[in-house]
Amino acid sequence: MALINENYLKLQGSYLFAEIAKRVASFKNENPNANIIRLGIGDVTKPLAPAIIEELHNAVDEMASAETFRGYGPEQGYKFLIQKIIDMDYNPLGVSLEDDEVFISDGSKSDVGNFQEIFQTANTVAITDPVYPVYLDTNVMAGRTGYYKADGHFDNVVYMECNAENQFKPDLPKEKVDLIYLCVPNNPTGTALTRTDLKKWVDYAKENQAIILYDAAYEAYIQEEDIPHSIYEIEGAKDVAVEFRSFSKSAGFTGTRCAFTVVPKSVMAFTQDGKTYPLNALWNRRQTTKFNGVPYIIQRGAAAVYSPEGQKQIRDIIAYYMANAKIITEGLQSIGLQVFGGVNAPYIWLKTPNGMDSWSFFDKLLSETHIVGTPGAGFGPSGEGYFRLTAFGNRESTEEAIVRIKTKLII
Amino acid sequence: MALINENYLKLQGSYLFAEIAKRVASFKNENPNANIIRLGIGDVTKPLAPAIIEELHNAVDEMASAETFRGYGPEQGYKFLIQKIIDMDYNPLGVSLEDDEVFISDGSKSDVGNFQEIFQTANTVAITDPVYPVYLDTNVMAGRTGYYKADGHFDNVVYMECNAENQFKPDLPKEKVDLIYLCVPNNPTGTALTRTDLKKWVDYAKENQAIILYDAAYEAYIQEEDIPHSIYEIEGAKDVAVEFRSFSKSAGFTGTRCAFTVVPKSVMAFTQDGKTYPLNALWNRRQTTKFNGVPYIIQRGAAAVYSPEGQKQIRDIIAYYMANAKIITEGLQSIGLQVFGGVNAPYIWLKTPNGMDSWSFFDKLLSETHIVGTPGAGFGPSGEGYFRLTAFGNRESTEEAIVRIKTKLII
Repeated sequence: MALINENYLKLQGSYLFAEIAKRVASFKNENPNANIIRLGIGDVTKPLAPAIIEELHNAVDEMASAETFRGYGPEQGYKFLIQKIIDMDYNPLGVSLEDDEVFISDGSKSDVGNFQEIFQTANTVAITDPVYPVYLDTNVMAGRTGYYKADGHFDNVVYMECNAENQFKPDLPKEKVDLIYLCVPNNPTGTALTRTDLKKWVDYAKENQAIILYDAAYEAYIQEEDIPHSIYEIEGAKDVAVEFRSFSKSAGFTGTRCAFTVVPKSVMAFTQDGKTYPLNALWNRRQTTKFNGVPYIIQRGAAAVYSPEGQKQIRDIIAYYMANAKIITEGLQSIGLQVFGGVNAPYIWLKTPNGMDSWSFFDKLLSETHIVGTPGAGFGPSGEGYFRLTAFGNRESTEEAIVRIKTKLII
Repeated sequence: MALINENYLKLQGSYLFAEIAKRVASFKNENPNANIIRLGIGDVTKPLAPAIIEELHNAVDEMASAETFRGYGPEQGYKFLIQKIIDMDYNPLGVSLEDDEVFISDGSKSDVGNFQEIFQTANTVAITDPVYPVYLDTNVMAGRTGYYKADGHFDNVVYMECNAENQFKPDLPKEKVDLIYLCVPNNPTGTALTRTDLKKWVDYAKENQAIILYDAAYEAYIQEEDIPHSIYEIEGAKDVAVEFRSFSKSAGFTGTRCAFTVVPKSVMAFTQDGKTYPLNALWNRRQTTKFNGVPYIIQRGAAAVYSPEGQKQIRDIIAYYMANAKIITEGLQSIGLQVFGGVNAPYIWLKTPNGMDSWSFFDKLLSETHIVGTPGAGFGPSGEGYFRLTAFGNRESTEEAIVRIKTKLII
């Protein structure tokens, strides 16, 4: 009898965005003429940069002729892209990597979700609360957690609370943990960890023979000097950390799909009998067995991100989104709201006024200003009392949203 | 202490293609002027069809403007592609599907590799021998097997021998199995199962509450009337079978990456306490949690396969490869070799002459004719004494290869 993986039954419904959609639909039904502005989404809106478009066309043309056609490529990605990543994203930070330490993929969601496969089920996982749900859900599916509890947490997971009191910087766990997920700059809080903050984590990982799974999908948005662009800027990180990066938010690839994961050959985990084993070899085996690489056309497009024109064009787009972030941040602050993030990330995380819960604030914002955001409670129990707005809208509607908040929101 | 998934250590090295490369390199070193013809690869060589190229360009252009730009799409794929698949690949066979029963992906290798995740580890897996290694390796990684044994098999796996004696048609297992991998038309043997053959499997699955994982990646090459194009042509299959299909071999997408998996909502597996549970819901949860969809550009290219021009163009390419298959088959038969496959698949599976083992024949073919093929033993112990040639070369080198085999191979 074919039995299902019952760990899937422990998962909670993907309640957050469904519930948002339901409430928005109901509001629209009652207010058919309302001009709703959506500042809840984590998706980009600007088109691909011209340098990328040009290279995508070139690559499509190559696929049209037998001489330049590409069939199966390396599962790990083409060297022409990997070398650009190393030369332009890492070497300038003083980080050297070999070309078989970078794995091109179709998305950080896939990589972050799949990476846990190469670890034993018994490992203890630490995640922040609030958190990007993929870290948690993929470990639930793998049986690395217990059941969901009434307090909104799963058994056998170490949750690290992030709130205004600790400036959204997770404390080192009191328990011994084995796998630590960190997202810097953070989704959903928009906050970041400094070099000093991260050093503590690298040291903890070394002492506890733990692995840090470092999600740097929002790296391109970092503006401040003391926020590292890569965990490998931290001494010792190359022994304990894997880094996930993506073109989704840096170059608008959310619908174009390209990302990469860095697994230095010096990162070691352990066998049951205490021998070290390189994660690079395990991940390489995982990817070559279960993945066949990113489309050649798409990898060519991603490589164009590193041309001088590509670099300028994507920086302009990021600057545009970050100007939106500033408009939102300053607008909210001007009416006395407490605001976090928005400086090194396209996410603004605000404390709901008057101790209001996240969903009540969602309803209030929607009914008074016709703006849709994301209730913080949707990212975990510690997100309760917070609310996420994003800077990925266009300028006009972002400005209009702030005018409405200033003039119509009753605090 | 972060512990690795030690099931990975049970895997055997991917010895086959590395060993081939080594022997070819050594031969070239000793024979620098030899003109080597490669008939070992499973990769296509013809460029993408013009209709596909045109649509890829159109989609790239859409990504260049804010009005038509696409960010995150549905993880399960765009309806414009799913509907074409249902209308053109399934409805003409008398198979009706709903649009949430088809999941677009980046490749059958990914889907075939990932699908086992939604089943319990304790399930018993049945595979053919010889076999496409992904079925086996991904189950080894998941801990669904025991250790590798001296006989070339893993413990706790049911191997179904396929050889000339049973016409490469696996017998129903004597043991009770839960998950059955079938590849029709078959890689590596190039043979296929008829409707009558498949009905036995569907009946077995129903009786034993097993699931058939049906890999139909070579469906487009079927020429004979009694070979079904989909397992859903068989009565009852919609209750017990999942079907994997790909644009890799049907439309030359090996480097362009698009495939799909059909999971009818009526396919049920079981919970430990005997309740039924739909695989569709589990796979949907797996894909939405760990995957973010195929690039919009690529899905548009795949949709062009279904235009009248696209259909004609890809059929011409398949006819070209199948003409190669005929040349190879007839050439080998003309010198008295026993040949299988090549009629409904681009693979020719030959019995090595004089009881020679696969690797000895590899060396003989290479040294006498300068042709590279694939030793059958590389696909499993029952592949010993067989050898695979593929029809994906160009016409000129395929014809030249047969001339050499006829004139230079000493049998």
